[in-house]
Amino acid sequence: MTDIEIPSEQWAQVVEKSGGPVVYKKIPVKKPSPDEVLINVKYSGVCHTDLHAMMGDWPLPTKLPLVGGHEGAGVVVAKGELVKDVEIGDHAGLKWLNGSCLACSFCMQADEPLCPHALLSGYTVDGSFQQYAIAKAAHVARIPKECDLDAVAPVLCAGITVYKSLKESGARPGQHVAIVGAGGGLGSMAIQYARAMGLRVIGIDGGEEKGQSCKSLGAEVYVDFTSSADIVRDVKAATPDGLGPHAVLLLAVSEKPFQQATEYIRSRGTVVCIGLPAGAYLKAPVFDTVVRMISIKGSYVGNRQDTQEALDFFKRGMIKVPYKTVGLSELQDVYKLMQKGKIVGRYVVDTSR
Amino acid sequence: MTDIEIPSEQWAQVVEKSGGPVVYKKIPVKKPSPDEVLINVKYSGVCHTDLHAMMGDWPLPTKLPLVGGHEGAGVVVAKGELVKDVEIGDHAGLKWLNGSCLACSFCMQADEPLCPHALLSGYTVDGSFQQYAIAKAAHVARIPKECDLDAVAPVLCAGITVYKSLKESGARPGQHVAIVGAGGGLGSMAIQYARAMGLRVIGIDGGEEKGQSCKSLGAEVYVDFTSSADIVRDVKAATPDGLGPHAVLLLAVSEKPFQQATEYIRSRGTVVCIGLPAGAYLKAPVFDTVVRMISIKGSYVGNRQDTQEALDFFKRGMIKVPYKTVGLSELQDVYKLMQKGKIVGRYVVDTSR
Amino acid sequence: MTDIEIPSEQWAQVVEKSGGPVVYKKIPVKKPSPDEVLINVKYSGVCHTDLHAMMGDWPLPTKLPLVGGHEGAGVVVAKGELVKDVEIGDHAGLKWLNGSCLACSFCMQADEPLCPHALLSGYTVDGSFQQYAIAKAAHVARIPKECDLDAVAPVLCAGITVYKSLKESGARPGQHVAIVGAGGGLGSMAIQYARAMGLRVIGIDGGEEKGQSCKSLGAEVYVDFTSSADIVRDVKAATPDGLGPHAVLLLAVSEKPFQQATEYIRSRGTVVCIGLPAGAYLKAPVFDTVVRMISIKGSYVGNRQDTQEALDFFKRGMIKVPYKTVGLSELQDVYKLMQKGKIVGRYVVDTSR
Amino acid sequence: MTDIEIPSEQWAQVVEKSGGPVVYKKIPVKKPSPDEVLINVKYSGVCHTDLHAMMGDWPLPTKLPLVGGHEGAGVVVAKGELVKDVEIGDHAGLKWLNGSCLACSFCMQADEPLCPHALLSGYTVDGSFQQYAIAKAAHVARIPKECDLDAVAPVLCAGITVYKSLKESGARPGQHVAIVGAGGGLGSMAIQYARAMGLRVIGIDGGEEKGQSCKSLGAEVYVDFTSSADIVRDVKAATPDGLGPHAVLLLAVSEKPFQQATEYIRSRGTVVCIGLPAGAYLKAPVFDTVVRMISIKGSYVGNRQDTQEALDFFKRGMIKVPYKTVGLSELQDVYKLMQKGKIVGRYVVDTSR
Repeated sequence: MTDIEIPSEQWAQVVEKSGGPVVYKKIPVKKPSPDEVLINVKYSGVCHTDLHAMMGDWPLPTKLPLVGGHEGAGVVVAKGELVKDVEIGDHAGLKWLNGSCLACSFCMQADEPLCPHALLSGYTVDGSFQQYAIAKAAHVARIPKECDLDAVAPVLCAGITVYKSLKESGARPGQHVAIVGAGGGLGSMAIQYARAMGLRVIGIDGGEEKGQSCKSLGAEVYVDFTSSADIVRDVKAATPDGLGPHAVLLLAVSEKPFQQATEYIRSRGTVVCIGLPAGAYLKAPVFDTVVRMISIKGSYVGNRQDTQEALDFFKRGMIKVPYKTVGLSELQDVYKLMQKGKIVGRYVVDTSR
Repeated sequence: MTDIEIPSEQWAQVVEKSGGPVVYKKIPVKKPSPDEVLINVKYSGVCHTDLHAMMGDWPLPTKLPLVGGHEGAGVVVAKGELVKDVEIGDHAGLKWLNGSCLACSFCMQADEPLCPHALLSGYTVDGSFQQYAIAKAAHVARIPKECDLDAVAPVLCAGITVYKSLKESGARPGQHVAIVGAGGGLGSMAIQYARAMGLRVIGIDGGEEKGQSCKSLGAEVYVDFTSSADIVRDVKAATPDGLGPHAVLLLAVSEKPFQQATEYIRSRGTVVCIGLPAGAYLKAPVFDTVVRMISIKGSYVGNRQDTQEALDFFKRGMIKVPYKTVGLSELQDVYKLMQKGKIVGRYVVDTSR
Repeated sequence: MTDIEIPSEQWAQVVEKSGGPVVYKKIPVKKPSPDEVLINVKYSGVCHTDLHAMMGDWPLPTKLPLVGGHEGAGVVVAKGELVKDVEIGDHAGLKWLNGSCLACSFCMQADEPLCPHALLSGYTVDGSFQQYAIAKAAHVARIPKECDLDAVAPVLCAGITVYKSLKESGARPGQHVAIVGAGGGLGSMAIQYARAMGLRVIGIDGGEEKGQSCKSLGAEVYVDFTSSADIVRDVKAATPDGLGPHAVLLLAVSEKPFQQATEYIRSRGTVVCIGLPAGAYLKAPVFDTVVRMISIKGSYVGNRQDTQEALDFFKRGMIKVPYKTVGLSELQDVYKLMQKGKIVGRYVVDTSR
Repeated sequence: MTDIEIPSEQWAQVVEKSGGPVVYKKIPVKKPSPDEVLINVKYSGVCHTDLHAMMGDWPLPTKLPLVGGHEGAGVVVAKGELVKDVEIGDHAGLKWLNGSCLACSFCMQADEPLCPHALLSGYTVDGSFQQYAIAKAAHVARIPKECDLDAVAPVLCAGITVYKSLKESGARPGQHVAIVGAGGGLGSMAIQYARAMGLRVIGIDGGEEKGQSCKSLGAEVYVDFTSSADIVRDVKAATPDGLGPHAVLLLAVSEKPFQQATEYIRSRGTVVCIGLPAGAYLKAPVFDTVVRMISIKGSYVGNRQDTQEALDFFKRGMIKVPYKTVGLSELQDVYKLMQKGKIVGRYVVDTSR
């Protein structure tokens, strides 16, 4: 199938029981099925979801033992007999959506993230915290060779997710979008995607440092919830006609920002929920929602087309993601920092060490 | 301007103070401004909103003294000098939206119900519970002469509202829509509009009698919340693939049906809020909303185009509205029945008695 | 893989050289690849395209020798190892689109008919004029067991195509669609789908008999081009406001009807081209197209979701297709009638004789 | 109505007979009707349409005598009694669409440019080549005070038109749009709007100088039809995947570029016609249009919302229009240059001289 030498064993970080920790050990390299590829993962981003997968604290159970990770960038080293549009040597990305049935009503309508048979990397199937990972060929991200594999890794989940949410928001070029949590990792990518899409950004977050970061990335206005006397008034005032933004992205969701969003959103506007705080409820007054014709919608990860579009903006140099690289062997240390809330920017693990 | 004889005085039902009652008395007939018409109202539907207007129990204050009513059907008897597309003798309808600025960003996008300068019939301006009512010519419903003026009256608010909500739902012909409160006045019209639009209806309401009514109007399945052991399961089972309806209309909103709706709606589906229970909040779990990409949106009254489309379905005989006619002088009695919850179907008042 | 007995040989109609005729002979039964199914075709519709494929008179070359046919309805008797959502014994349909890559930008956006690697049944791969046909599992139509396999066969190409074109037209329930060629095979299905979708139909064709047929299927108005003194005027007059239909389907395209369509279509309306007369050009005046903001678009076959939706309307009894059944062995006689223009309705071949 | 001093006479350029020339003379100043404003025009752009209006060589007859001009920027000096949202002293623009009925089915759907009762500035009503012009208040462009009145004038027709066509194209941020005639006046604005909307531009025009201009304004690729050996191949090659642009704007339409556009457009793409060459026909092969599902559509001038959006991009400094200012008295000289094809960039007339 290929003459690239593929070892029979590899290094991986394995969750052996829910609650962790991850164990750095050698495990066998698998062979791809007819519709799969084997990716030699070079770098993988580390996401909060990976911590949830290790801890097993989400309602949906993980496979066990589990190799986590769903932002893996690498090189295709083997492929099944049916795979025609991916070649050995291509750069490819392992995403949250490892595979889907491609035949249900959701898949048939390009909503494969909603497929009831979806395979989730690093959750229901092994993911990218190993040197050689399996993925359905139809689903791997096609990474252009111009992109550095370490820098692109965080785009494979965080980037796609915020890009998708901007598409779902329905905001058109020239319109305003407020981004709640604009100073965080997702938020900083969201600002850049929004700008690349011709949108005008109102960043909402806490503290001066985040404000400077938001503005340097292209937010026209920053509303600091730690110092604003009236967030609703300030966000509305940030639009020239005072009617509020056309869309809101809720990246740092808790019930309070959610309810505020329905107050400062423009009539006919759309509030998009993306963040997934455990056990949270969204809440809005029925009267205002009806007479102002507000939409509230959830946006999950992107589909395959969204993936390629999000990568294309990255390839064109329009999205910069600050990240820090450590060895795959150091993953448990990253989780510890995460648990302490001490992560600034994105961590990327190098699978060669 | 016209040689139809217009009296200087007329009978009207006047709210003289919030809390009511309405007073049946003679008041002057007004003259239209350059962009207005004067309608000789023949019949007017009575809506729950009229009771709220009399009681003054909504946050938005009414004008006082107030002539209520916003489902008035009649004949144009005078018009201002700028009015070119409405003729004396035309049949016309007075709707909730009496006028709007036609120049703000909402009006410019055909969302005139969201106009911040909107005039509301029977609320911020005098309405249809009088023999001669003023309305902005651009906003009056153009009623085809084939339509009986008594039968069409309830279409002017209830009909337009449910038709609009079906359009807002995004449901396409052949898809399923669940209607919560399908056995009520709005619900029975919603079933018929949905059927005329090629949609398949799941009626949800309480009691066998309402079930028979729903089915006779075209609902394929009826789910009775007074006897169902598991509403969510039953509604999902009513769709052939078990994934639930593509859209839900919430006509009889309270928090419980709302939350259930987000449980039985199909992934990527849309829950449309229409009803306006005082002080109610909509509430949904963030996790489910996001990973199933659910939309929740409010739908208010229709715009002018929706009005004409809703009337067109009525004219074609596809929408039957059961109603009972009483004299305008008996309006207070209708309110009394309404307050006791004893209204079945729609009441229409005849302004000639 | 299955214990249904599958013969090693079968009857088929084979095009051995371009220009025909078809040869009725025994050929081997193939085995499905990992992502394919083997369908025991019971019935197959005969389409004009099949004649073109035999004659080899289209620009795109066919495979040779070729088994034609792309409206095959039958039973799944074998499947490859990767096929999970189709079971042995399921009823399934072979369509024009036998398979596609499911990975290109078109496939990723649910536009698989535009896939540059599409496999075309009865054209670039063997089709349904044989007893056992191969198809990509992801692409076979899922036929509900309530549907008769002979009656459903013509839906698999003609039905899907007209249904898709109605979706592409953008016409909404209550709006008018003019169907040029309404009295033919595609046209009669188009009328019924349009009605099921809540549309109002203006049928355009030649002769009284076709007029009666159109009206009996639900066309509100029939314009006879053999007797109309002014088709443009008559079609516009068929809409209540005289502004013309919102959409036009061109099923019997030649340059004349095309140009007329841009004259009677409503401003902002959409003219949809479906028919494929050899070497024809569409032509429209630039001035009128611009100042009336007319859209002209091509609609090809439906995607997989369109297929299931078109079948669903059929299953509900809303689409009746008149057809005549003959033995597969008589296919050449059907082609002879077709060449003489003597086909009325649709022919379906029974592969058992 | 106002205490700004309004003279009873003013300077104007008047077309007294079709074929011209314009006569610079004093004419009376009109008074606004209840729904109109009187604008003290400071500057007016000169458009090819104005030359057509003077020559009377279009099928639609002009009023006579006629004051031409439809890109007038000035100050509101008087208004009718019904006008509430425009104030004396506001900056306002007179556009091609001077007024519309605001009540027909097109106006009700925000398609007022399609209104059958539309009033056209400088064509069916007097326009901006005078010092004081009348316009319907609902239709005048609201010009932000940050905008210079000379610089903004050309945006009022050319800018709005190309912006509208980009919206109509359906192209999304990150997608490619080819602009035929990119080096001309409309084209250079189209490039800038496209960039501001996040689109990627392929400029098509003739000559090196135009190429440099296109690239300096933001076109990523320039295809020179005077030197390209194969335009279709070159335009397709300008997109990374070689499938061609998602949309094409035809600003310099003749039949040849039109037909080429349908060859290099991506499948499912949209060709937008904007230019209006006298007597031209658009022509495309039916086969290709159908099997590649191509859309061809006309785009006329923008509606009122498009106007405000186009102005907003200008106000933000994203659209630079090179123009040369001359006195209103010199208008005939501008027409002479136009007739000789010697206009580079846009001419703006100063009504004060």
